[in-house]
Amino acid sequence: MSEEKTNSGNGAGSRRQFLKAAGLTGAAAAAGGSAALGQTLTGVQPKAEELPPNVPDWSRYLGEGVADRPYGKPSKFEANVIRRDVEWLTASRQSSVNFTPWHQLDGILTPNGLCFERHHGGAPDVDPDAHRLMIHGLVDRQLMFSMSDIMRMPRVNRVHFLECAANSGMEWRGPQLNGCQFTHGMIHNVMYTGVPLKVLLNEAGLKPNAKWLLVEGGDASGMNRSLPLEKALDDCLVAFKMNGEALRPEQGYPLRLVVPGWEGNIWVKWLRRIEVGDMPWLAREETSKYTDLMADGRARRYTFFMDAKSVITNPSPQAPLKHRGRNVLTGIAWSGRGAVTRVDVTLDGGKSWQEARIDGPIFERSVSRFYVDFDWQGEELLIQSRCHDSTGYLQPTKSELRKFRGVNSIYHNNGIQTWLVRANGETENVEIT
Amino acid sequence: MSEEKTNSGNGAGSRRQFLKAAGLTGAAAAAGGSAALGQTLTGVQPKAEELPPNVPDWSRYLGEGVADRPYGKPSKFEANVIRRDVEWLTASRQSSVNFTPWHQLDGILTPNGLCFERHHGGAPDVDPDAHRLMIHGLVDRQLMFSMSDIMRMPRVNRVHFLECAANSGMEWRGPQLNGCQFTHGMIHNVMYTGVPLKVLLNEAGLKPNAKWLLVEGGDASGMNRSLPLEKALDDCLVAFKMNGEALRPEQGYPLRLVVPGWEGNIWVKWLRRIEVGDMPWLAREETSKYTDLMADGRARRYTFFMDAKSVITNPSPQAPLKHRGRNVLTGIAWSGRGAVTRVDVTLDGGKSWQEARIDGPIFERSVSRFYVDFDWQGEELLIQSRCHDSTGYLQPTKSELRKFRGVNSIYHNNGIQTWLVRANGETENVEIT
Repeated sequence: MSEEKTNSGNGAGSRRQFLKAAGLTGAAAAAGGSAALGQTLTGVQPKAEELPPNVPDWSRYLGEGVADRPYGKPSKFEANVIRRDVEWLTASRQSSVNFTPWHQLDGILTPNGLCFERHHGGAPDVDPDAHRLMIHGLVDRQLMFSMSDIMRMPRVNRVHFLECAANSGMEWRGPQLNGCQFTHGMIHNVMYTGVPLKVLLNEAGLKPNAKWLLVEGGDASGMNRSLPLEKALDDCLVAFKMNGEALRPEQGYPLRLVVPGWEGNIWVKWLRRIEVGDMPWLAREETSKYTDLMADGRARRYTFFMDAKSVITNPSPQAPLKHRGRNVLTGIAWSGRGAVTRVDVTLDGGKSWQEARIDGPIFERSVSRFYVDFDWQGEELLIQSRCHDSTGYLQPTKSELRKFRGVNSIYHNNGIQTWLVRANGETENVEIT
Repeated sequence: MSEEKTNSGNGAGSRRQFLKAAGLTGAAAAAGGSAALGQTLTGVQPKAEELPPNVPDWSRYLGEGVADRPYGKPSKFEANVIRRDVEWLTASRQSSVNFTPWHQLDGILTPNGLCFERHHGGAPDVDPDAHRLMIHGLVDRQLMFSMSDIMRMPRVNRVHFLECAANSGMEWRGPQLNGCQFTHGMIHNVMYTGVPLKVLLNEAGLKPNAKWLLVEGGDASGMNRSLPLEKALDDCLVAFKMNGEALRPEQGYPLRLVVPGWEGNIWVKWLRRIEVGDMPWLAREETSKYTDLMADGRARRYTFFMDAKSVITNPSPQAPLKHRGRNVLTGIAWSGRGAVTRVDVTLDGGKSWQEARIDGPIFERSVSRFYVDFDWQGEELLIQSRCHDSTGYLQPTKSELRKFRGVNSIYHNNGIQTWLVRANGETENVEIT
């Protein structure tokens, strides 16, 4: 068998056979793929060592059986498609973040295994049978729900992005990290199944003076935030499934709050308690954190909305251009205020803009996917994307943003991102001033 | 610390504290959750040993850090949510099938790790850098594509179901397997990213007499099928991503054919070769297999479409009713001819039907999710669902189906499924004759 392998792997020999099989002998081979598809697609005819063996091993030997993967995993060739964290960014790994590799994904959904994580006390392993959700405060009936109570209530399915308020936060003072995974990786987009929060609140019965909720998580950080009742009754969900299956532990298993279009920090995970009150709680995470320090030293508070934003995921520093000729530029766009209506792309640093092709379903407060199919002959590019949303808002430049916000902020940086594509295809995080 | 654990686990003590925290002391506790939510939701007040400790460990100790899961996995409490196979069904594990646990899922998407597998030579581990796709036959230019060639062509995103022609095949002669995972688990529903097959065929240039394609896989079974050119030019994709990430090995990594609405066997995985011809090839998988033997001994051939179908996933034999009062009945519906327009549900074996609530996005040739929120007081139920599609077609009963098809068939069984829900909630696969 090892001998067979050697034979099948024999470069010259197998190449001759392969070309024959492919009908690419003689003149055809000379012209070959290049004439066929043109420089713009295949580049040059592959060299012998680049060709597959005439009959690769995977076509000769049985693969894995159906009982070998009760729960499937990605191919071993995809081992570098992972969430990554930045060690110097936080003091501990439990109160930290890792980032979604958008440059390695496509479409509008984030696979559950690659949804970025942000937690303040680590990701706990909550036992769903022991977990309870309590609703109390300004209600007619204080209630306690088990998971099976909640899963017998009317449920809905919604696709929404979750973006950390600090996504792109490191870029306020200029380009810092090389890769959209790090500059824009604190967002994921998932189909949730859950019970409208309104249904649970109606079970409890709201007192006339009810105006705000305190939503609290069951993890060691006891994460809590104040949520306006109006939003809670509008479109919030108490979700127990993501992309069809149970929430992942790091995403709040067995129960999380979904707050469409609002900053991720308020999407409380491991949701255990909802207190109804008549004013906000001024909790730590909405006073000392998750506020926006302005140039004059005052801080914006309760800046819930994630405004329209976009980023080109390919090419990008982690995904440089590798071929001249035909290429696909792609990226993601989203708005916490509504739907993405249009995405513009520039290849020349904003001198000229073209409308990108948005493909795939478009939902409110969801990531949309855009494409520009273009031809590249090795010229230097300055690429940017800008998002228009259904409110008529246009994603601002970073300098426009700084005019109003200064550079003290950490959160809510939705400025236009610039990548420099060099003649050799290498791509870099830069800013045009 | 172990002592703390003991204390926090102290039933009576911690219950008292918990009820106090929950404001459910004294009279409130007596009436308690039940009065609050009514029998129909919570049933009786939980017993002390059912209550969580006042402060569960996951609220007291740090959880996992962000570097612990480069690629995430489900909670350990979800270990029974897996694909399952039926050992006696096939002679070998490599030419076999496993089934998607729809009774444990929700929404319309199947997580990649739970998409049913069906292969004829095992699931190979194909090296994407060595993989090639060849297009030859009645074309102007015979072509060979590397993965990077294909990934530089214009791509689209589409949500489609893939159903094995043999899904529910074991039910032709009457109820056989207890569980929708086994009776209806050979379908999954995924968002694909790929290049329209039309784009690749246009690169090659079709001869005037081109009418059929032979599509061939790179696995050890060399799976091949004849595909009418008209369908290939209509909506077929050469896909490289599913639900945002690369195809899984068992789903054709790095490249598979997507043939919306048609039987799964023709969605060739590990796609390596497309030959263009002027007539079908009469391959093994479209003559001795994947044909429908009629009562008179003749066989239907090239029966590509998967007709409108549905199944109730909850309650079902693997997911019995466990609580009286409010419950959620849910299931999935789909049609290979177009979109699901309506789903009817009966609780009394067809005497009376009600329209189910369809929730979540509706796509052409995709699974849709339906719900009936109902109240159950322990009465015996005979539950069925039936799917209407955009062509006006209504899913038939099994006996209607047998009138035309006899009972020799293995494939294309889209008859209405019946579950019997007993007084104790246990649920069984039955048929009404």
